[in-house]
Amino acid sequence: MKIILDGMGGDNAPAAIVEGAVLASRMMEHEIIITGDEDAIRKELANHKFDAHKISIEHAPDVITNDDAPVKAVRNKKNSSMVVGMEMLKEESGDVFISAGNTGALMAGGLFILGRIRGVDRPAIASVYPILNEDTVSLLVDAGANSECKPNNLLEFATMGSIYMEKVLGKENPRVGLVNIGAEETKGTTVVKATHEMLKRSHLNFVGNIEARDIPKGASDVIVCDGFVGNVIIKLTEGLAWSIFKLVKSKFTSGITAKIGAALLSGKLKELKKEFDYSEYGGAPILGIKKPVIKMHGSSNSNAVKNTILKAIPFAEQDVVSTVENTLIEISDIEEMLISE
Amino acid sequence: MKIILDGMGGDNAPAAIVEGAVLASRMMEHEIIITGDEDAIRKELANHKFDAHKISIEHAPDVITNDDAPVKAVRNKKNSSMVVGMEMLKEESGDVFISAGNTGALMAGGLFILGRIRGVDRPAIASVYPILNEDTVSLLVDAGANSECKPNNLLEFATMGSIYMEKVLGKENPRVGLVNIGAEETKGTTVVKATHEMLKRSHLNFVGNIEARDIPKGASDVIVCDGFVGNVIIKLTEGLAWSIFKLVKSKFTSGITAKIGAALLSGKLKELKKEFDYSEYGGAPILGIKKPVIKMHGSSNSNAVKNTILKAIPFAEQDVVSTVENTLIEISDIEEMLISE
Repeated sequence: MKIILDGMGGDNAPAAIVEGAVLASRMMEHEIIITGDEDAIRKELANHKFDAHKISIEHAPDVITNDDAPVKAVRNKKNSSMVVGMEMLKEESGDVFISAGNTGALMAGGLFILGRIRGVDRPAIASVYPILNEDTVSLLVDAGANSECKPNNLLEFATMGSIYMEKVLGKENPRVGLVNIGAEETKGTTVVKATHEMLKRSHLNFVGNIEARDIPKGASDVIVCDGFVGNVIIKLTEGLAWSIFKLVKSKFTSGITAKIGAALLSGKLKELKKEFDYSEYGGAPILGIKKPVIKMHGSSNSNAVKNTILKAIPFAEQDVVSTVENTLIEISDIEEMLISE
Repeated sequence: MKIILDGMGGDNAPAAIVEGAVLASRMMEHEIIITGDEDAIRKELANHKFDAHKISIEHAPDVITNDDAPVKAVRNKKNSSMVVGMEMLKEESGDVFISAGNTGALMAGGLFILGRIRGVDRPAIASVYPILNEDTVSLLVDAGANSECKPNNLLEFATMGSIYMEKVLGKENPRVGLVNIGAEETKGTTVVKATHEMLKRSHLNFVGNIEARDIPKGASDVIVCDGFVGNVIIKLTEGLAWSIFKLVKSKFTSGITAKIGAALLSGKLKELKKEFDYSEYGGAPILGIKKPVIKMHGSSNSNAVKNTILKAIPFAEQDVVSTVENTLIEISDIEEMLISE
């Protein structure tokens, strides 16, 4: 298998990307192709020991930055590390594409270069959500690609999320929950109420509405919401974990007794920090496009890059795309059923 | 001043409500009137030492439960502790009403019994959001009353929130932030984009969009969003804080060294728990109705009741309602300005 990696995307590119690739290549047999400015990447590679048979470079001198308008960037920057990588994926020079670059451009590239899966109205970003005390994860769809959604979009997210959760993350018959402001069916917006009705009639393992307070407790394996709410959930979790960790640290290192305690507990503090650390959990797949694409956090460090590469393998190996395509026929059936009533 | 307290609302009524009233009455000169079943409340009062001049009972044998349909309950349960309390507030037998009961019924009672402030389209729930490392708070509006909002509703929330923040919480010229999925003006839903435009033209101290990750860091004093997103923010914060606290505790009490450390740190752990504890922060005012009403968390304990009563005093003393009424003229001006362009 060949993994295509955007060498220039994200805040810490190319150094952290290249280092992450080197670290991952030591832990697997698969080949990595890094797209980007050849000189810049070669220079970074020179800082590491690596197997030249396992890491190669595809020269792409341009860079799509976070300030670029997504659609325009994908159309005009044909020689960018992102567009070159996606074109390679399309032409089957590789099996999966990973980037920490501009999310909008990655979505636009997914749509224009790779194309939507037949039956998918809106591709979505799926983000792994760590369940802290249970050593497991949920999958949140959509994590930010679609601010405004119709009920059929949310049903698609639920379907695609279930397939990814089962095939890639290995959770059989995953529980699907709909983010809402109360457990009762009658709660929420018009869109959420209509989605609830559709999910009830689907073949998914729908467990009903979930309130935001139950998300961190693992109330469902797949967490369904529009991209606005999903983005709020992901970013609030990140910000709040950071604030709480800072508070724990400041409390436990103030005063003399506390300093002794903190010294004794330093190992535990490190463990704790690791559980908060998104870089342990890998990237977020874009579901609904014809090839496997994974979005990494913009500020990914080498550890995040390494973990994303390793976790990309089952996504590429399992034929998630075909399964999504075959399953989505169900959605139009449910829509027809509801309309005909 | 007289504080009217719903003696029967919430999971721990009447015991925790009565105990909270007794605790608060020891710390202030104001009078408290508890509405509810006289026998039940008298029985609870008998468990405490209290000044009979400062706590009285208004008999109201009915109870509105969380299972009651809000509008129907307010119309049919005229002798409930909630309706009786709101009628007393209307007739000026008291200056502020506090309840831990059915939120929907409290909103409905606010609208039907007390009435909207002239110029307010949608009353909203404002919830205090603790900023952990800075010993300060932000105010989130709407925390869950209105799932679907128009831009002018969000502008109203911003205006009412600013007035409450300044007059009651004592923050001069409060910074107003709009919850969005990115800092750029062009991000978000149609409604959020239009709201951004209106806020920019308002007299408020608008600091722009805020991303959810910056909310716990105190990015703005007033956090504006629709009630669906607001409910997600409040409940996710509660759930995640609980999960993280549980994790900290389990990490710090596993293994022998950790146990020694944890023993040394027990005081710090208690401090930490207190910062997580919503009951320290008082209740959530309902803004936009003609009299001061405060909603407490359904599971409020006596400490939460005590703090809510003490923090209700400035809300009743400062004339927030008139200020809101006078300020809202501004909103129709901005709307006209935008329409005429």
